[in-house]
Amino acid sequence: MAQATQALIGDSEFDRDTAVTLREPGVYDAELSAGWTIIQAVNGGYLLALLGRALGEALPHPDPFTVSAHYLTASQPGPAVIRTEVVRTGRTLSTGQASLFQYGEDGAEVERIRVLATYGDLDALPDEVRTTAQPPAIPPIEHCLGPSDSPTPIPGSSAITERLMIKLDPATIGWALGAPSGKGEMRAWFGLADGRDADPLSLLLTVDALPPTAFEMGLQGWTPTVELTTHIRCRPAPGPLRVSITTRNLAGGFLEEDAEVWDSSNRLVAQSRQLAKTSKG
Amino acid sequence: MAQATQALIGDSEFDRDTAVTLREPGVYDAELSAGWTIIQAVNGGYLLALLGRALGEALPHPDPFTVSAHYLTASQPGPAVIRTEVVRTGRTLSTGQASLFQYGEDGAEVERIRVLATYGDLDALPDEVRTTAQPPAIPPIEHCLGPSDSPTPIPGSSAITERLMIKLDPATIGWALGAPSGKGEMRAWFGLADGRDADPLSLLLTVDALPPTAFEMGLQGWTPTVELTTHIRCRPAPGPLRVSITTRNLAGGFLEEDAEVWDSSNRLVAQSRQLAKTSKG
Repeated sequence: MAQATQALIGDSEFDRDTAVTLREPGVYDAELSAGWTIIQAVNGGYLLALLGRALGEALPHPDPFTVSAHYLTASQPGPAVIRTEVVRTGRTLSTGQASLFQYGEDGAEVERIRVLATYGDLDALPDEVRTTAQPPAIPPIEHCLGPSDSPTPIPGSSAITERLMIKLDPATIGWALGAPSGKGEMRAWFGLADGRDADPLSLLLTVDALPPTAFEMGLQGWTPTVELTTHIRCRPAPGPLRVSITTRNLAGGFLEEDAEVWDSSNRLVAQSRQLAKTSKG
Repeated sequence: MAQATQALIGDSEFDRDTAVTLREPGVYDAELSAGWTIIQAVNGGYLLALLGRALGEALPHPDPFTVSAHYLTASQPGPAVIRTEVVRTGRTLSTGQASLFQYGEDGAEVERIRVLATYGDLDALPDEVRTTAQPPAIPPIEHCLGPSDSPTPIPGSSAITERLMIKLDPATIGWALGAPSGKGEMRAWFGLADGRDADPLSLLLTVDALPPTAFEMGLQGWTPTVELTTHIRCRPAPGPLRVSITTRNLAGGFLEEDAEVWDSSNRLVAQSRQLAKTSKG
């Protein structure tokens, strides 16, 4: 809560590392920062935020309402180019497509991720809320645990952990102690380490930032994302977010991860679902 | 249960009405049948099955694993063309894109729906199942109710009802009697009226075939789909399906509809989520 040094939206690590530069109409250069890697891989949510920023530039509406991403090949830190297409523009919603490419050894573009997204204006939505979902029951943040609370490094600690404030519910941290609960659940308080408040773009990062539920189900190894669709439902209020991730159907070497993100005003601000593959799937 | 006249996969109304004809590599002609309309609109799940069939032709893998569809403009019965693109082919998964177009008054193509999809081979998946989700509690099919059980026509009855066997859980049919429960729930037994068994393509129809949960929440009017993503997790066993649809977050003029489809072997064969817009949203 170091208010004096809190980074602002538009002037933060996250904003600098998701910056895109117009090369020509619809085409944006970007630099994938090594600061958002997990083990060797660039975090999928960070990549999604980059694509989301480019589409926000390309489309007439400012905010991602629903973003569907299919992950094709593993991204590496370094230069990238995002090619966007305006598919349809309407009065309240517009739809676009974007692909993120990197460069192969021969200099040819290799596609990493392709997204379809529909944008709108969150501030133009009516105020009516009839949510029956309940915020996740997470203990107070001071009772939750992050990497810095561990006497030994938590498996999977990576560059990205320095940029995130993730405090896991102790009930979902058994995997880090060699005793996974067996339940497909992961819950945490979430923020950006430099204190930047959440916005729709950072929510795209948030939905894919927690350790995979597979860890709590006792699975070894990574669970690469095949597809991730995120609905941004409300502009988040300032303050820490609560994230709950649930897996109910691990079968045939694939699993879904359903994420909910709640803000400090008890609004359900984002819902996402991804299809991921188990290592042996 | 008229076994003697049961239609077969590949030789049924659904198969004939989702047929696609190769025009040139990657481009398929189709005819949107008036038999799958709800009120005036062509059903979104039927359209998804058409796109899914074209992608199954275009991609090296046979089965849709995850299909993300963004709905752009309302489709009408009549001719259409589906243009596909192979985005990536891998050993176990391949990704493609497809758009369905119809023709404007000037003959120009108008895009109706765009999808990104990743395909694989359901029969190649390992048998391990660790699903913690439970099948929906739906009364026996003989206690559930369809359009033909109503003394008066059910509001919204349409051509599609003649092609589907939908028997709604009486607990979620209050809307048809002028007394919606207020809960965002819809549950039903589901099949094709000619007895054709389910397959991955017909599951794409199934996830968007029940009355909208909004009806049970007391909302008037239609709730057009903005985006619909479906995961096909298992080849369905023969016999009737159970479908459960849940809405937990109606806010700002939008709502999500989460569908689960269970087969007669108690396997969770499909999961989907759509973002829909309320009429006044």
